Amino acid sequence: MRIVVDAMGSDNYPTPDVEGAVMAARQSNDTIILVGQEAVINAELAEHDTDGLLLQVVHAEQVITMEDKPSRVVREKRNSSMHVGINLVKSGEADAFVTAGNTGGALGVAMLRNVGLGRIPGIKRPALGVIFPTRERPLLIDNGANADCKPEYLLQFGLMGSLYVERVLGIERPRVALISNGEEEGKGNILIQETIPLLASSGLNYIGNIEPKEFMRGGAEVAVTDGFTGNIMMKMAESVASYMSEVIREYIKSNPFTALGGLLARPAFDRVKSHLDPDEVGGAPLLGVNGVVIVGHGRSSGMAIKRAIEQARSVVENEVVEAIATGVNVNKEDKS
Amino acid sequence: MRIVVDAMGSDNYPTPDVEGAVMAARQSNDTIILVGQEAVINAELAEHDTDGLLLQVVHAEQVITMEDKPSRVVREKRNSSMHVGINLVKSGEADAFVTAGNTGGALGVAMLRNVGLGRIPGIKRPALGVIFPTRERPLLIDNGANADCKPEYLLQFGLMGSLYVERVLGIERPRVALISNGEEEGKGNILIQETIPLLASSGLNYIGNIEPKEFMRGGAEVAVTDGFTGNIMMKMAESVASYMSEVIREYIKSNPFTALGGLLARPAFDRVKSHLDPDEVGGAPLLGVNGVVIVGHGRSSGMAIKRAIEQARSVVENEVVEAIATGVNVNKEDKS
Repeated sequence: MRIVVDAMGSDNYPTPDVEGAVMAARQSNDTIILVGQEAVINAELAEHDTDGLLLQVVHAEQVITMEDKPSRVVREKRNSSMHVGINLVKSGEADAFVTAGNTGGALGVAMLRNVGLGRIPGIKRPALGVIFPTRERPLLIDNGANADCKPEYLLQFGLMGSLYVERVLGIERPRVALISNGEEEGKGNILIQETIPLLASSGLNYIGNIEPKEFMRGGAEVAVTDGFTGNIMMKMAESVASYMSEVIREYIKSNPFTALGGLLARPAFDRVKSHLDPDEVGGAPLLGVNGVVIVGHGRSSGMAIKRAIEQARSVVENEVVEAIATGVNVNKEDKS
Repeated sequence: MRIVVDAMGSDNYPTPDVEGAVMAARQSNDTIILVGQEAVINAELAEHDTDGLLLQVVHAEQVITMEDKPSRVVREKRNSSMHVGINLVKSGEADAFVTAGNTGGALGVAMLRNVGLGRIPGIKRPALGVIFPTRERPLLIDNGANADCKPEYLLQFGLMGSLYVERVLGIERPRVALISNGEEEGKGNILIQETIPLLASSGLNYIGNIEPKEFMRGGAEVAVTDGFTGNIMMKMAESVASYMSEVIREYIKSNPFTALGGLLARPAFDRVKSHLDPDEVGGAPLLGVNGVVIVGHGRSSGMAIKRAIEQARSVVENEVVEAIATGVNVNKEDKS
């Protein structure tokens, strides 16, 4: 297998990106192709022992930053590591693309018709799945690719999410639910109400609507929502978690007894940190594009990049793209 | 002033509801009217020393529960404490209504034309404001009254929220922002994009879009959103906070050293609890109805009910309803 890694992706590129690639190459027989500014990558590779590893470097002059406006860079930075990297998948020279860079950029480049991968035939809108970092690790889809959605998009998000969870996480007939502001029928906005009958007759294991509380507690393996709501949910969770950590730290430090308590309890806090930390659960699969693309968090460590590479491998091995292509067409035939 | 309190509102009615009413009556010269099943209220009042307090009881036979479907109870439970209580405000016999009961029920009853208060002329949709329980205590509006919104509704939410914060919280020209999935122009869904020009030309202190992170950190005093997103945000925050508390508790208890640390740090944790606890910040004002209605949390304590009563008094004293009625019409004249 050949997996392309964007060496210029993460906030601290190329250090975590190259480190993750080296770690992944060391633990498998896959070829890892680092794409980005050749001199920068080679200088970083020199810090590692890469003897005998299947590592390649492909040059790409431009770098897409987190500040770049996706719609612009997609058109203007045609020599970016994302363009070059995704094109390697498109041309069949590689099997998957992994980046910790600008999500909107990756989505835009992946969707380009000539350079990029385009959509899986039959899929209306690709969506970003994200494994939510609680104990039960539900998949939330869409996490921001589509701010405005139609019921048919949400139906397909349910299908794609379900296939991903089934094949990559190994959960058979995962429970699919719609995120709503109430579980009872009649709750939800018009989009939710119009999506319910589509999911109910889809053949998916649709269990109804869930509220954030049930979502957090693993009330479904696949939680479907529009990209606006999904993105706000994810950002809200990160913000509340960091706010709480900050307040706890401040109050503990405010008094010598509680400070001592905090010191003793520290190992417990360190374990808590792994919860609600997006780094722990790998990257977000971009589902519905005609090829494998995994987008990691900008703050990814080398370990997180390595995990995202393993995740990409699993998506390729388990033929998620092929399953979606088949699933969406079976679904169509059913209807006609 | 005469304030009606729903004695059958909270999850544990009538205990906290009556206790809060007694506390409020003791600290002011206002008349507090408890509405609900007379015998139940009198039995509860007998537990308190009510000598010399301006407390009245008005009988209402039916009780609206949290499980009741708002659309149904509004039509069917015409003798509920909400119907009777809100009608006292409608008829001029009281100045405000406070309940810790079913939010949808309170909204529905308040909006009834004959029994209830109806809308302030010019207001398209009433909205539920909620003071978000972080340090900066921003007002989030709408918190669930309107699952589907139009840009003109959001504009009015901004106006109503701004007037509430200015008059009740005493913040002059509060900053108004739209909740979005990104701060840059071009981000947000169609609703957000169409609301931006309306807010920008509204004369309000509109500062642009904010993400959940900035919202949590007090990036605006008034955060405007549709009721679906607002409700999901609030529920997400509560869920994440309770999830984190639970995980922290579990990890701390898992080892004797961390358990000792947890014991020592306990006063700090108790202080943290007051954050993200909706009980701490009083009730949610139902803005846009033609009268003062405050909806408290179902889990309200007596103290929380007392605070909600004080909040109702402040809304009456500061003439928020009148200010909204004037504001919405000034706004209209400007446009024509």
